[in-house]
Amino acid sequence: MNSETTTTARFTGIDVIDIRFPTSRELDGSDAMNPDPDYSAAYLVLRTDAGDGLEGHGFVFTIGRGNEVQSAAIAALRPHVLGLSVDAVCADPGLVSRALNEDSQLRWLGPEKGVMHMAIGAVVNAVWDLAGKRAGKPVWKLLADAEPEWLASQVDYRYIEDALGPDEAVALLRRGKQGSAERERRLLARGYPGYTTSPGWLGYSDEKLARLAREAVADGFTQIKLKVGADLTDDIRRLRTAREAVGPDIRIAIDANQRWNVAEAVAWTNKLAEFDPYWIEEPTSPDDILGHAAIRDGVAPVKVATGEHVQNRVVFKQLLQAGALDVLQIDATRVGGVNENLAILLLAAKYRVPVCPHAGGVGLCELVRHLSMFDFVALSGTTEDRVIEYVDHLHEHFKDPVTIVDGHYTAPVLPGFSSEMHGASLDTYRYPDGVFWAADLAAQASDHQKETDR
Amino acid sequence: MNSETTTTARFTGIDVIDIRFPTSRELDGSDAMNPDPDYSAAYLVLRTDAGDGLEGHGFVFTIGRGNEVQSAAIAALRPHVLGLSVDAVCADPGLVSRALNEDSQLRWLGPEKGVMHMAIGAVVNAVWDLAGKRAGKPVWKLLADAEPEWLASQVDYRYIEDALGPDEAVALLRRGKQGSAERERRLLARGYPGYTTSPGWLGYSDEKLARLAREAVADGFTQIKLKVGADLTDDIRRLRTAREAVGPDIRIAIDANQRWNVAEAVAWTNKLAEFDPYWIEEPTSPDDILGHAAIRDGVAPVKVATGEHVQNRVVFKQLLQAGALDVLQIDATRVGGVNENLAILLLAAKYRVPVCPHAGGVGLCELVRHLSMFDFVALSGTTEDRVIEYVDHLHEHFKDPVTIVDGHYTAPVLPGFSSEMHGASLDTYRYPDGVFWAADLAAQASDHQKETDR
Repeated sequence: MNSETTTTARFTGIDVIDIRFPTSRELDGSDAMNPDPDYSAAYLVLRTDAGDGLEGHGFVFTIGRGNEVQSAAIAALRPHVLGLSVDAVCADPGLVSRALNEDSQLRWLGPEKGVMHMAIGAVVNAVWDLAGKRAGKPVWKLLADAEPEWLASQVDYRYIEDALGPDEAVALLRRGKQGSAERERRLLARGYPGYTTSPGWLGYSDEKLARLAREAVADGFTQIKLKVGADLTDDIRRLRTAREAVGPDIRIAIDANQRWNVAEAVAWTNKLAEFDPYWIEEPTSPDDILGHAAIRDGVAPVKVATGEHVQNRVVFKQLLQAGALDVLQIDATRVGGVNENLAILLLAAKYRVPVCPHAGGVGLCELVRHLSMFDFVALSGTTEDRVIEYVDHLHEHFKDPVTIVDGHYTAPVLPGFSSEMHGASLDTYRYPDGVFWAADLAAQASDHQKETDR
Repeated sequence: MNSETTTTARFTGIDVIDIRFPTSRELDGSDAMNPDPDYSAAYLVLRTDAGDGLEGHGFVFTIGRGNEVQSAAIAALRPHVLGLSVDAVCADPGLVSRALNEDSQLRWLGPEKGVMHMAIGAVVNAVWDLAGKRAGKPVWKLLADAEPEWLASQVDYRYIEDALGPDEAVALLRRGKQGSAERERRLLARGYPGYTTSPGWLGYSDEKLARLAREAVADGFTQIKLKVGADLTDDIRRLRTAREAVGPDIRIAIDANQRWNVAEAVAWTNKLAEFDPYWIEEPTSPDDILGHAAIRDGVAPVKVATGEHVQNRVVFKQLLQAGALDVLQIDATRVGGVNENLAILLLAAKYRVPVCPHAGGVGLCELVRHLSMFDFVALSGTTEDRVIEYVDHLHEHFKDPVTIVDGHYTAPVLPGFSSEMHGASLDTYRYPDGVFWAADLAAQASDHQKETDR
């Protein structure tokens, strides 16, 4: 790589790939709102002519149908990225973040929410992946090493300035720098605490639930999570089973996946209170700020958690302003990528609300650990009451998969955002023409033909 | 049409068409956030095998880029509709509305917001268009003639039941029935009041603004609207020009199209107060419920209006609960179609907030008049402080275009939702292969080639 090549390098291509895993066949990931998800990713590869062999990888996690719409949304962003200087963009990913969010025509399709916004997030995350690779650092360290002023400049303060402006962001980040070297050593030695949802899927039997819950404790986790909200009698039985399996000292979070109205959320949660649930997650619509505040009043001391479906920083701002949250759950591919998640982490730090990321799905664990680890090292400076969700699915498809030791996420050391999948996985699960799906769809067509012939 | 054909009729096809009008070339529709919109529609035609020649037409209005993503989202809904009984669906459009909103995999892409939700709205609206055509009634009359219990059953109360449940909806609709026959006669005789945005686009000269403002008054409008928010000095000059042109008795609304933060919205609006603006529209993010409440406190007696970008009934519910709005602006293609707009009209009626729909764009005037006219005849029962936006663009493409007499929208009498475009318009403006675009893109390619050859 010579310096001339580097300084003139441009983005030359964005490959968009529709990846689907047939997870619904095992009921992994089943909950009260999502009975049969096919965990999927609208995936992109950002190519350059730098000649250094480096690519930026990013994706949106979806649960199956509509992944082609999400992929089309990513493809619609190509004209904004192709031709840009790789050096300029990697030195300031906020450039791309702003350009994508400010396209006045695409903005109409949100603004800053849903399919179009998640597509922007995937492209922005791919830029950070490339920036990390070029800097030779994992993204958590790229962020933790950055100057407060530069980090603060990566945030779009539009619509949040009544809660947080650039000066206060710089002050929070400067405070976060104090003692960061020591925290980085602790992170590398010990990792970041996780909790596991693997025991608690709604489709699992009580025996499987109890067994997996005991295994989770044996594996060093101090918190597990159960899905609730489909049937109260079942929930009482399952929560009793789990509590008996783990004993009184392990935190059990419960997750209703938006199943309830406000009054229902309060009543149902209170009926489960005897089993000492730690938090109730997604009790109602992620859009209902005032509803979450009312629920929090009604279920205390059970904590209220939400965020995996919260569309952007503007809604998080209000959840914090309204005192509607005890636990803020960022998601790596729901909002506008690293830049918007930086805004959300800053808001959480300002309001002193712990961040416990949503993960699982496809690659969410891989990505979101970078954000929590940065937060620990160089922003909030603590892991107290903070845990990253862990689900033991689909990690084998990633080149830099998560590893858990004694209930803790270890810190990734490979450069980038850990967002890159193996080429073989992409070739196998590309929909509908990858190796797995081509065979599967042919078999389905053949079955259908036999059915018709009968 | 024989009865056997009718009772067995099924939905057999959904054509999806990407329609774009090159409006950016005239700066029609330019505002502080949308400098160069190409008014577009992701359009669908719902076909059946009923043999009665009737189709359901629906669309999402967009402003250009990304219209292909919106079209892909509509196409993704095909499996939910094809094969359903036309009789059953037209007798209860809520069936389709619920089925589409409750697809657990597609729901992940919202939930109930953005591209996927607007696609659902377009399909639902196409169903209402067909239901109206089959009943031989314009949709406003289909709604106004319906039984309160049936209408109330068309609403999804999930996430709004803390503000409005089915019993209260029935009570509101029963109250709305009182005197509805007399109001229907008044509507047919006089129409429904409109206001015009045509003078106020940001791209127009002061001379054009003054001339169009005077023409609006001469045409019988009692309210006009000006776009603001790009430059304060310009806004002061333009608002003074408009006020001088129309005199003190005509209402002048101003519209910032989400340009401001909260504090900026208050300060800027107050600097325009001397010209007596009637409302400030979209002062900030449509997601910022608490922000709108703060702005309303800060700018009174200027009223606060928003809604064209409000994603669903859950956000409208909170805007009303928080006392954040003086004027609620429904949009015909932003939310989940007629069914969700019915929920929003009921919420507005309960909180006694006037509804002044957003319109303009492509076909929004055509659609939304049905909702306001139903509201007048059989729900709120009044047009006091209520006006439907009117913009004089693109009506020629519709088979049942709006007509304005003395500043009032006349009531449509043709069966359906007035959502059907002329076939010739579809053929001409289909992107990228319609007659207009094929020629235009070929000319662009030729210009580009000449540029390259130089």
